[in-house]
Amino acid sequence: MSEKLLQKIDSPTDLRKLELSQLPQVAKELREFIIGIISQKEGHLGASLGVVELTIALHYVFDTPEDLLVWDVGHQAYGHKILTGRRNVFHTNRDLGGISGFPKREESQYDVFGVGHSSTSVSAVLGMALASNLKGNTERNHIAVIGDASIASGMAFEALNHAGVTDANILIILNDNAIGIDPSVGALKEYLTSFKEGHLHEENNIFKALNFDYSGPIDGHNLEELISELNRLKTVKGPKFLHVLTTKGKGLQLAEENQVKYHAPGKFDPETGKIYPKEEGDLPPKFQDVFGHTLVELARLNESIIGVTPAMPSGSSMKFMMEAYPDRAFDVGIAEQHAVTLAAGMATQGMVVFCNIYSTFLQRAYDQVIHDVALQRLPVILCIDRAGIVGEDGATHHGVFDLAYLSCIPNLIIAAPINEIELRNLMYTAQLGLELPIAIRYPRGRGNIRDWQQPFCKQEIGKAFCLKEGNQIAVLSTGTIGNNVIKALENSGRNDIAHYHFPFVKPLDSLMLHQIGRQFKKIVTIEEGTVNGGFGSLVSAFLLENNYSISVHKFGIPDVFIEHGTVQQLHEICKIDVVSLQKYFESV
Amino acid sequence: MSEKLLQKIDSPTDLRKLELSQLPQVAKELREFIIGIISQKEGHLGASLGVVELTIALHYVFDTPEDLLVWDVGHQAYGHKILTGRRNVFHTNRDLGGISGFPKREESQYDVFGVGHSSTSVSAVLGMALASNLKGNTERNHIAVIGDASIASGMAFEALNHAGVTDANILIILNDNAIGIDPSVGALKEYLTSFKEGHLHEENNIFKALNFDYSGPIDGHNLEELISELNRLKTVKGPKFLHVLTTKGKGLQLAEENQVKYHAPGKFDPETGKIYPKEEGDLPPKFQDVFGHTLVELARLNESIIGVTPAMPSGSSMKFMMEAYPDRAFDVGIAEQHAVTLAAGMATQGMVVFCNIYSTFLQRAYDQVIHDVALQRLPVILCIDRAGIVGEDGATHHGVFDLAYLSCIPNLIIAAPINEIELRNLMYTAQLGLELPIAIRYPRGRGNIRDWQQPFCKQEIGKAFCLKEGNQIAVLSTGTIGNNVIKALENSGRNDIAHYHFPFVKPLDSLMLHQIGRQFKKIVTIEEGTVNGGFGSLVSAFLLENNYSISVHKFGIPDVFIEHGTVQQLHEICKIDVVSLQKYFESV
Repeated sequence: MSEKLLQKIDSPTDLRKLELSQLPQVAKELREFIIGIISQKEGHLGASLGVVELTIALHYVFDTPEDLLVWDVGHQAYGHKILTGRRNVFHTNRDLGGISGFPKREESQYDVFGVGHSSTSVSAVLGMALASNLKGNTERNHIAVIGDASIASGMAFEALNHAGVTDANILIILNDNAIGIDPSVGALKEYLTSFKEGHLHEENNIFKALNFDYSGPIDGHNLEELISELNRLKTVKGPKFLHVLTTKGKGLQLAEENQVKYHAPGKFDPETGKIYPKEEGDLPPKFQDVFGHTLVELARLNESIIGVTPAMPSGSSMKFMMEAYPDRAFDVGIAEQHAVTLAAGMATQGMVVFCNIYSTFLQRAYDQVIHDVALQRLPVILCIDRAGIVGEDGATHHGVFDLAYLSCIPNLIIAAPINEIELRNLMYTAQLGLELPIAIRYPRGRGNIRDWQQPFCKQEIGKAFCLKEGNQIAVLSTGTIGNNVIKALENSGRNDIAHYHFPFVKPLDSLMLHQIGRQFKKIVTIEEGTVNGGFGSLVSAFLLENNYSISVHKFGIPDVFIEHGTVQQLHEICKIDVVSLQKYFESV
Repeated sequence: MSEKLLQKIDSPTDLRKLELSQLPQVAKELREFIIGIISQKEGHLGASLGVVELTIALHYVFDTPEDLLVWDVGHQAYGHKILTGRRNVFHTNRDLGGISGFPKREESQYDVFGVGHSSTSVSAVLGMALASNLKGNTERNHIAVIGDASIASGMAFEALNHAGVTDANILIILNDNAIGIDPSVGALKEYLTSFKEGHLHEENNIFKALNFDYSGPIDGHNLEELISELNRLKTVKGPKFLHVLTTKGKGLQLAEENQVKYHAPGKFDPETGKIYPKEEGDLPPKFQDVFGHTLVELARLNESIIGVTPAMPSGSSMKFMMEAYPDRAFDVGIAEQHAVTLAAGMATQGMVVFCNIYSTFLQRAYDQVIHDVALQRLPVILCIDRAGIVGEDGATHHGVFDLAYLSCIPNLIIAAPINEIELRNLMYTAQLGLELPIAIRYPRGRGNIRDWQQPFCKQEIGKAFCLKEGNQIAVLSTGTIGNNVIKALENSGRNDIAHYHFPFVKPLDSLMLHQIGRQFKKIVTIEEGTVNGGFGSLVSAFLLENNYSISVHKFGIPDVFIEHGTVQQLHEICKIDVVSLQKYFESV
């Protein structure tokens, strides 16, 4: 009964058959449907609730999929998925084999561009529109919906700057809710705020200055106003910009009031919105919290320490530093390039900068790591969060390339601790002063050690450890995946397999490798990163270069993109889970 | 006589002892000095001529190096180098062992941040200024000089957006000459043009909208006006923005009239400015021109072909496509991130996009290659120009990381032709439709083949070739460095050394590698890229994974940053020049 309209909508064509007066009911049902499923399944809630009306209006007014619609980032695209034929599979959201949590080309003709990382939508849509022009299609509409946090990222500015001098038939919709995952920051955000509050004159308009036909701001929860304005814009050619104001979490009071928490709240009561308490009990901490608390501890001891995060204060737990030392911690917005070079600039003045970036997003600052940090030997401390498989966020978010793309960079130390205590000690060691930059990678989620807050120990750079003796086969692992190796070896009962932990992928412990090369005829490397170009590749190259006649089997992420699922499921696919490793050890 | 003032300036302290009235004479002498040396030595001319007065004014007004001054990109910093103690070594500019063509921290305390790639200066200076705040130094000035082409790049916007909400004591000077290497493009450029022409009101100001204390535009060749304004700004705290108008090539008429050509004109007559004709005679073409002309040939045959360049129409020879098919070629400005995702967007609509980016600048678009192109299997054709050692531009510009950072990316074909004809055939093959993206890398400068305009042949993806038989040692090379191998083997007279050319680094020719693995006990790999993670690493890993007991010696770029010098000199340092390879072949 409560979903009498929504259950008949199998595509936007069905939506367009409804009267305008029926759409508020569709919005109500769509919101309830999202809340109903996400309250049980977990997922990104707030962003999709905020654009329910905008989603309906866009598919109602425009002729999707003939008109091309791209959702920036894609956190907000659940309503889009549900209205475009995926209502009945929406309960598989983010499951292995189920639909992706982000728009994805393979999944639907309505997902015209895969997203996940922010600020790509304007470039993508402009490319589509210029292609339409060349094909003589001047009627097609090309629409990007981008948030106020994402539009402040450099890539979006590059695209706006180009778009403004074209005759591309594009409509950029700024979904302005003053928040990304955490509250938006920066001068553009302040500008937009003043604008909304009417403190600025109409003519003082950045988007007009960039040659866009600007309209707004309008109420993004008023379907009539949205539809009327979109209908008008449909008749306007060239680059258009519509400023829409929305509330993240709209329609669920607690989500509106706690927007950071309800970005992805976990399971909650669909009626009240109350988040169900997790049975955390005596669980080991998240690596993120180990990072965050340790940084505060170190910052107390070392006045030169600064923290930098590109828009992830909550996710990375940089928030603890921001609370303890607000002057010494900087959220720079979705600006990974700027974050790294800002850190380099600070390092020239003797500051000890912990720049925390997710592995997958450090790809955005690759040149800055090479050109501004490593080339200048500036001792920036890059803390690479969410390295390895991240789970349900899937292919766009796994942090599996960093070992490969970093290990070709001269002057850079690369470390991957096996547990919370080693992460702490590496952070401690780094801030003592290395005279070289260091990257410390660690995974999303919890480790295994409850009693992690041990006194700091300085760690010798480059030194590897033998965790278990053996005389037949040597297993070399780096990072937390080493814990799977430990368990698998225990379970297998193989006493002849040795296990070495390499906290440093670079420099490699060459002394230890020579020992291993002399002692063993078979080596197995295990890492939570691509087998191409990673730890196993470096070990292989070293052994061959030094004429060890030896066989090397490499475990890691194979040369394909890994989709979404639980970390455990995806480890199984990559054969780096405990059971797969145990079977392998029993078979060799 | 003609340099009576300049020859007494060994540091900015000397400059500051002069009367304001003497500065025009310093400017005249400085301009003559630059012209005198660059006319004989080659180098970046136009940019430095354009900022002679600005350079003098900055060092005259500010207390460098206590005040921190960063030149964006650094093409324009010759005057800065000459005034800061490097007048007597300026003739070694860009020579092996001489001073760098760019500001460089190791070289001088006045070079507070190394540059080369564009748009880093605002981030760097902001980092320094925030560090000064934390250290309680509120008097220090932090100055970035950035061009109008560079400020339109995303990274600069990210930094401005952050700076605008800080109390950092920074001064951003926009050196607005309406040109980068090629004329500036984009909406911001049009905005600045309207602004200069007085079509826009003072209050309609992007930089004010971003919270900067804006002044200008002022005449960047008027020393009195510059000095007066800089003196005023020295007393203003917080983020400041000064808009300065200059003429690239100022003071050399031909350079002012032909700004693209005189960016780096080669040798010329210091009096008239006339460029000395190069004795090109019957030389083989540049790879850039082979790319450019071939693209036009293919575009004539295939209507779906589009060309994209981020601000390098001349350097990459994309200009030929822009001339022949202006609707189908896009200069998007210094916007590598946007360029790649724009190409991906076009590819979703069936367009065949040749996106040409220098290897070193593709580092800026690394995430976009992974996330927007490869993950979505969009068949974008990345033409990677200036791969390998580039010579005199030095460490910031060598294109030596691409093989390593690309080879860990699933779905991506990576090719490195040995000569002009193979480059053409790879381009031809790519546009036939591969259903996967491909990266084709080739070097800066000339090849060896005069008669390159051969009929197109389709090339089998992944197939390697035996160029020379042998039974003792197998040499495996990829790319144009294979020509050094050919000559070195000829010179060495070794008949027992086989030579294989791998046009594809990915997929590797596994059939050929198995043959080689079975036949040989010693393998040598040679590439013009980092030995860590490149072709040799992939070959090593393959052989070990397949249990070939074999020794592999890898030639390539060692794990250090390679400085500036001629390509030949730097090849010698890396031991991949003909003579070094010959000696090696003779010794094994």
